[in-house]
Amino acid sequence: MNITISPRGSMSLLSQLEISRLQESSDKQLYRLFRNCCLAVLNAGSNTDSSEEIFNKYHDFDVKLIKSERGVQLELINPPAEAFVDGKLIIGMQELVESVLRDILFTGERYNAQTLDSADTNTLTHVVFDILRNAHVVQPNMDPNVVVCWGGHSINEVEYKYTKEVGYHLGLRDLNICTGCGPGAMKGPMKGATIGHAKQRINDGRYLGFTEPGIIAAEPPNPIVNELVILPDIEKRLEAFVRCAHGIVIFPGGAGTAEELLYILGILMHPENAEQKFPLVLTGPAESADYFAALDAFIQDTLGSEATKLYQIIVNDPRAVAVAMRQGVAEVKEYRREVGDSYSFNWTLHIEEAFQRPFNPTHHNVANLALHRDQPSPALAADLRRAFSAIVAGNVKDEGIRAIRENGVFEIHGEPELMKKLDVLLRAFVEQGRMKLPGSVYHPCYRVVTE
Amino acid sequence: MNITISPRGSMSLLSQLEISRLQESSDKQLYRLFRNCCLAVLNAGSNTDSSEEIFNKYHDFDVKLIKSERGVQLELINPPAEAFVDGKLIIGMQELVESVLRDILFTGERYNAQTLDSADTNTLTHVVFDILRNAHVVQPNMDPNVVVCWGGHSINEVEYKYTKEVGYHLGLRDLNICTGCGPGAMKGPMKGATIGHAKQRINDGRYLGFTEPGIIAAEPPNPIVNELVILPDIEKRLEAFVRCAHGIVIFPGGAGTAEELLYILGILMHPENAEQKFPLVLTGPAESADYFAALDAFIQDTLGSEATKLYQIIVNDPRAVAVAMRQGVAEVKEYRREVGDSYSFNWTLHIEEAFQRPFNPTHHNVANLALHRDQPSPALAADLRRAFSAIVAGNVKDEGIRAIRENGVFEIHGEPELMKKLDVLLRAFVEQGRMKLPGSVYHPCYRVVTE
Amino acid sequence: MNITISPRGSMSLLSQLEISRLQESSDKQLYRLFRNCCLAVLNAGSNTDSSEEIFNKYHDFDVKLIKSERGVQLELINPPAEAFVDGKLIIGMQELVESVLRDILFTGERYNAQTLDSADTNTLTHVVFDILRNAHVVQPNMDPNVVVCWGGHSINEVEYKYTKEVGYHLGLRDLNICTGCGPGAMKGPMKGATIGHAKQRINDGRYLGFTEPGIIAAEPPNPIVNELVILPDIEKRLEAFVRCAHGIVIFPGGAGTAEELLYILGILMHPENAEQKFPLVLTGPAESADYFAALDAFIQDTLGSEATKLYQIIVNDPRAVAVAMRQGVAEVKEYRREVGDSYSFNWTLHIEEAFQRPFNPTHHNVANLALHRDQPSPALAADLRRAFSAIVAGNVKDEGIRAIRENGVFEIHGEPELMKKLDVLLRAFVEQGRMKLPGSVYHPCYRVVTE
Amino acid sequence: MNITISPRGSMSLLSQLEISRLQESSDKQLYRLFRNCCLAVLNAGSNTDSSEEIFNKYHDFDVKLIKSERGVQLELINPPAEAFVDGKLIIGMQELVESVLRDILFTGERYNAQTLDSADTNTLTHVVFDILRNAHVVQPNMDPNVVVCWGGHSINEVEYKYTKEVGYHLGLRDLNICTGCGPGAMKGPMKGATIGHAKQRINDGRYLGFTEPGIIAAEPPNPIVNELVILPDIEKRLEAFVRCAHGIVIFPGGAGTAEELLYILGILMHPENAEQKFPLVLTGPAESADYFAALDAFIQDTLGSEATKLYQIIVNDPRAVAVAMRQGVAEVKEYRREVGDSYSFNWTLHIEEAFQRPFNPTHHNVANLALHRDQPSPALAADLRRAFSAIVAGNVKDEGIRAIRENGVFEIHGEPELMKKLDVLLRAFVEQGRMKLPGSVYHPCYRVVTE
Repeated sequence: MNITISPRGSMSLLSQLEISRLQESSDKQLYRLFRNCCLAVLNAGSNTDSSEEIFNKYHDFDVKLIKSERGVQLELINPPAEAFVDGKLIIGMQELVESVLRDILFTGERYNAQTLDSADTNTLTHVVFDILRNAHVVQPNMDPNVVVCWGGHSINEVEYKYTKEVGYHLGLRDLNICTGCGPGAMKGPMKGATIGHAKQRINDGRYLGFTEPGIIAAEPPNPIVNELVILPDIEKRLEAFVRCAHGIVIFPGGAGTAEELLYILGILMHPENAEQKFPLVLTGPAESADYFAALDAFIQDTLGSEATKLYQIIVNDPRAVAVAMRQGVAEVKEYRREVGDSYSFNWTLHIEEAFQRPFNPTHHNVANLALHRDQPSPALAADLRRAFSAIVAGNVKDEGIRAIRENGVFEIHGEPELMKKLDVLLRAFVEQGRMKLPGSVYHPCYRVVTE
Repeated sequence: MNITISPRGSMSLLSQLEISRLQESSDKQLYRLFRNCCLAVLNAGSNTDSSEEIFNKYHDFDVKLIKSERGVQLELINPPAEAFVDGKLIIGMQELVESVLRDILFTGERYNAQTLDSADTNTLTHVVFDILRNAHVVQPNMDPNVVVCWGGHSINEVEYKYTKEVGYHLGLRDLNICTGCGPGAMKGPMKGATIGHAKQRINDGRYLGFTEPGIIAAEPPNPIVNELVILPDIEKRLEAFVRCAHGIVIFPGGAGTAEELLYILGILMHPENAEQKFPLVLTGPAESADYFAALDAFIQDTLGSEATKLYQIIVNDPRAVAVAMRQGVAEVKEYRREVGDSYSFNWTLHIEEAFQRPFNPTHHNVANLALHRDQPSPALAADLRRAFSAIVAGNVKDEGIRAIRENGVFEIHGEPELMKKLDVLLRAFVEQGRMKLPGSVYHPCYRVVTE
Repeated sequence: MNITISPRGSMSLLSQLEISRLQESSDKQLYRLFRNCCLAVLNAGSNTDSSEEIFNKYHDFDVKLIKSERGVQLELINPPAEAFVDGKLIIGMQELVESVLRDILFTGERYNAQTLDSADTNTLTHVVFDILRNAHVVQPNMDPNVVVCWGGHSINEVEYKYTKEVGYHLGLRDLNICTGCGPGAMKGPMKGATIGHAKQRINDGRYLGFTEPGIIAAEPPNPIVNELVILPDIEKRLEAFVRCAHGIVIFPGGAGTAEELLYILGILMHPENAEQKFPLVLTGPAESADYFAALDAFIQDTLGSEATKLYQIIVNDPRAVAVAMRQGVAEVKEYRREVGDSYSFNWTLHIEEAFQRPFNPTHHNVANLALHRDQPSPALAADLRRAFSAIVAGNVKDEGIRAIRENGVFEIHGEPELMKKLDVLLRAFVEQGRMKLPGSVYHPCYRVVTE
Repeated sequence: MNITISPRGSMSLLSQLEISRLQESSDKQLYRLFRNCCLAVLNAGSNTDSSEEIFNKYHDFDVKLIKSERGVQLELINPPAEAFVDGKLIIGMQELVESVLRDILFTGERYNAQTLDSADTNTLTHVVFDILRNAHVVQPNMDPNVVVCWGGHSINEVEYKYTKEVGYHLGLRDLNICTGCGPGAMKGPMKGATIGHAKQRINDGRYLGFTEPGIIAAEPPNPIVNELVILPDIEKRLEAFVRCAHGIVIFPGGAGTAEELLYILGILMHPENAEQKFPLVLTGPAESADYFAALDAFIQDTLGSEATKLYQIIVNDPRAVAVAMRQGVAEVKEYRREVGDSYSFNWTLHIEEAFQRPFNPTHHNVANLALHRDQPSPALAADLRRAFSAIVAGNVKDEGIRAIRENGVFEIHGEPELMKKLDVLLRAFVEQGRMKLPGSVYHPCYRVVTE
């Protein structure tokens, strides 16, 4: 089955010149990325986190750009049947495909690798803003109400139900949800919020999904996401999260969640951010109490109480989480109003270049991380973040998986005592099944060198 | 906790005279009904179908009308805490309470018992229309898209999931759901449709709940219902269903579902309705195949093939149900266009007085039903409908339960062979747990006299 | 040319019973009124204030009600060609016709003469409210912003331009205009406000026209009116004005304007209205200074300074009028908020029965008015109001004109000194051409008996 | 009086980088242009077409950009008092200022002189499209309904009333108006259309004004314009007109109108545009019949019947003009649908580079125009267009006026017979007062060398 769709919204208004440029990119690597992301979103709702599996199953899928005066059209060749109803593409699916066209081809053409490599820190922030503005995620005249929810894509049933409960109580309080847009802790809060929103008769609830090309296939947008943005890499994605957030809730998770926690702590510890209001809550069901105790201890041991005082841990109380967020968001609004910052993009949050510049998780780069406490805490946070980032890549990102296959596992070196603590934490993640979706045996992609 | 709320919408624009009239009704029986219905909707989401239990638990609940020039206000005294978030009434709850004010006090004052008793058949239809218009359920310029879903409030998990699946496929096809607004088969299709609507980015999906004072406490509106209408009695409720419906899906259920099926069959069999387009599908999961076989056989035995040809049975194929409804609704639109009937209210459907006039399920009336095949089928359908209606009353309606408690079970007489078939059908309902919510032992409120 | 139209809005949702009732009224006098009002609004924009002339010109015009299940339709037979564009009725015209259907037939059937005659004062206010609510003129959640503009239908060019200027400055300040909906001072403020609204990008500006069956043909709605309401008689029309107004501006005018001024003064002088905030401004161009001086003197002489202190006169300063209204309306809002009154209908304004009960301007009734200062001022105001009302009827209302033709002019008796002052005032109206549109010679319909 | 305003709409969402760039432009020539255009639009409604006069009157006016995290703000220093109501900037004025910020600073920074000089023909069209898209003038999902009205800014009262009549009949037919946004024939059709739109209850009528920096002060946007776009130069402005138009009406005018007519004829005569549907009507009151006869003769003499067959002349029949446009626009829609062109931007219209590349009206360039019939008609049309363009510049554009003051009048050379005809036409324009607003004596800025 081939089907032709006409983008709506901003992608429906392209000039002939812009359409020609999009078409020219057909030969390039960018185009392959575009095709893969289209496939990933059309496949939303499938039950695997293996990109490879998806790409193999739909190896004969393709997408072509057709140019006409009226605008560009997309021809989908052999798309997954689940994306259609009675022969018509589901509108939500069409919107996701349009997001891919916008963020991968249209924006990707503007912000290509060379541009980004040579950009200074202000420009990098501008790029993140521009991508979000182009996606209508940042808008004028909106009250602060975006709660970013982080947590594992692979969590157990009890935890999943808990994330739904938290989402429900957030939704009841007129708060919107922003996540990494995949399954597990990225889906639960959205699902819960839809019920909360429905009860409060809020029919313009926002379910924001921020993803990146390397992970979109493994963690395709869940069907509730109604605003999808694909940032070029994890660093811009993380910047998008923290600048759009009016508060962050962290659920149990694996390496990715640890990466996210270290990222936000490393930034909030910076002296220039001392005045920032930034509600940050770690939460899970009673059964997850130990998990947070371990994570808290690890942060205490590595970054100290300067870091642990930036968040609070709430165990088994969804209502309390939502009340804390509602209160925190009110303080954020007050703070932004006072300092004259935007309600929809946190410009005053200072982000060091170490957290902005993309980290390429090669074996060489991983081996050379500075993982010791003989340095300022933000610097340690930055390199710890990179270590976890590498593990995520090795676990689920296409390139990372290939690198591991070719060169063996990443070796993570550092201060021995620190390495021991890290090893314990990671082992717990593995044992608790947080690295990969259930049903597959997890083969670690790393080795912590503890002596 | 006492709380005062100001109605919005149509109930916010009352004249001083109207408010005075509402207040005067405080002494009357009407007011007690109003108070009970308020409690029932504020209690939405609870897990019991015993009105008594609810009324006992919140015996100190009350609601007062406060008059001011600006309009009427409601003071809720000791309302259920679950209806509130951080001290504010959930907006959906407030809307339900406003519906109660509108339908019980405001409309109830206009269409009191005397008015209705003396009304002719045209006036009765006018009353149903007026109540629905007042509730903005009938609206100009809407395409036919209302699928009424009937079925049991007490169904098993497999059946419940199936109703959600059907609702999902209906929602994907831009169809809205109308049910009796309680749990089970009245909730599942709505829940499923929300996902279908979300995927199609339909954010004005309608989830219509039609109820009646006698049953609202036992089957309070589920939280998805966003348009609640309380009709004065089951006969007007049934007329509202069939005149608003552009198609009906019937899921497994007990006595209430049988009543509904007999009602619509009795009407559609009338010669004046021969040209009507009216998609009618009986459906359930594979496990329910026997259930429908039995029901089908009962209809065949009582009303004949004239009746069975009016519906189709689809087993275990939610998609096929939705496709059939979509197609059927298109035919309904075409038909209404041709004959010049309204898209939102089926005026041309002829309903005999026997189906309109309220049946009071006293022991005497039940004992005198004419349950034999020696009469025209529609007449038999009308009295069979009344028999099932009595059982529903005895099962869950306040008055019915009290009548049974005082005078023992209803005795159902009739043609012996027919009685045997009826007995078999009812026994199956009991065995399958369709009479009451699980967790309670069912004591039949009737006895079929089979010899 | 015959054309069939389907009402939209509330008139599109009638029950079969309601349509039948409308049709039955075809034989009655009500129907003739309906036909005449339809003709009057279809004729909007014509340049005569003689109903007779219009009715003669279109003597073969008729309108028929057609019943179908889908709703009622109107067949217009030989309608004025100006109401159409390329064979289609102009939408604004269609809305006016729908208002006539709603207010004359639908509401008129409900509130017939008998009902109204036997109604008490609360019920009369309820009727006014109900008619306005039915027309969506009173709405929830609106800020006070309605400025009622009174003044002559026949004013000179300088005065007309001045009314436009005032309207412009009111519109710039986000105020809406309500008038008697005819030409002259009833049109100018609306026309000016459209420019003010356009500059402020207000595209939901309201241009309310309140009229009555007896006058609609002589003063058909100007084309800017986008909300037309036809009240049953002048007394209800005046009550509608003062209960909807958040402020009143009075421009130069004739007998009708004097009637209006006496009406509002008579009400505001009542002790129960002592706390009311009610901005009331008399204004005109420099050339009209004498006019207001004379009117002011007449009020002083008849009702005293108790009355004159209730208004201010602003000569030749449109901006100042608008600033005064903006400020006054803000005080009205504050007052209503404090006392808990509605923003859209002034319930707390006390209106004596003498101002509510319809005055039938027969020769006998006019002759028996109590026009002397030996009574409380409000009572005198009430009878003076009736005297002017009779003159308006004799000037432009169908029935009044016929009564004069048959029985000669009205004789107005009273306290001699008062009669002299009245005579002077009326003579000035005649000399200034305020009684009838220019182009016709004015033959007084009254005689003031000054000795 | 200084006042600070926060832009809304797209200009409210700028990144810190973008705001910095805007601020940096403060030193440049661009900034002076920005300041002058702001002044021009704040001065909308004034009665002079002399930029100099305006700039002198408000020599102490200035505008400053203020940067904050929340976005850019504009500080207006000593702005014209007429732009304010009770100390607040009129919203329509604020929108015009925002358009200036967007088109002059924001877009102007992107498309600076160098960029545009080196652009090829496709890129030039892209620039026009991008500017219009950025201004939300081109939008998806709009039916063709834009009628461009061209004609003089200085026309007599009879002509002005006629343009209003035409606008009224266009508005009645749901057509929107696009003009050069100044007074005279640029204002009348808009004013008329507002009445037509109001009668049809169209409250989202579009009144598009396309202007250019060089002319905005002399012909500031009239207050009805609700979408203002400032194109960089007359050539892009003309391209914007013809690509947005679904039909063009030409009223009497002077040199600018002749320029416009030659532009569209030169384009439509191109063989690649042979299939285009393009309704083009020249119209005026009975008194203007001679004017059009002369213009028609001039076109016949210069470009031949190939050109004259592209338009029709309708004298004194506003209704017929509107009916022709309504019909023509329907054909345009059909054509665009068939060839797959956009409804909101005419991509398939071929425009030769000669019509796109800016013509700099220096004395040297004017002297070197090829004004003879020994060349293809489109080429002659292009150079005739340039000759009229130079006269417009010399009449009302700042730079042009200065050039004339320094170097004397333009000398226009060419084929003698052609020059004679041109001279006759221009003399008629002068005699009829079409070159400058009444009240000033016109000193020609050119000399036609006729031998």
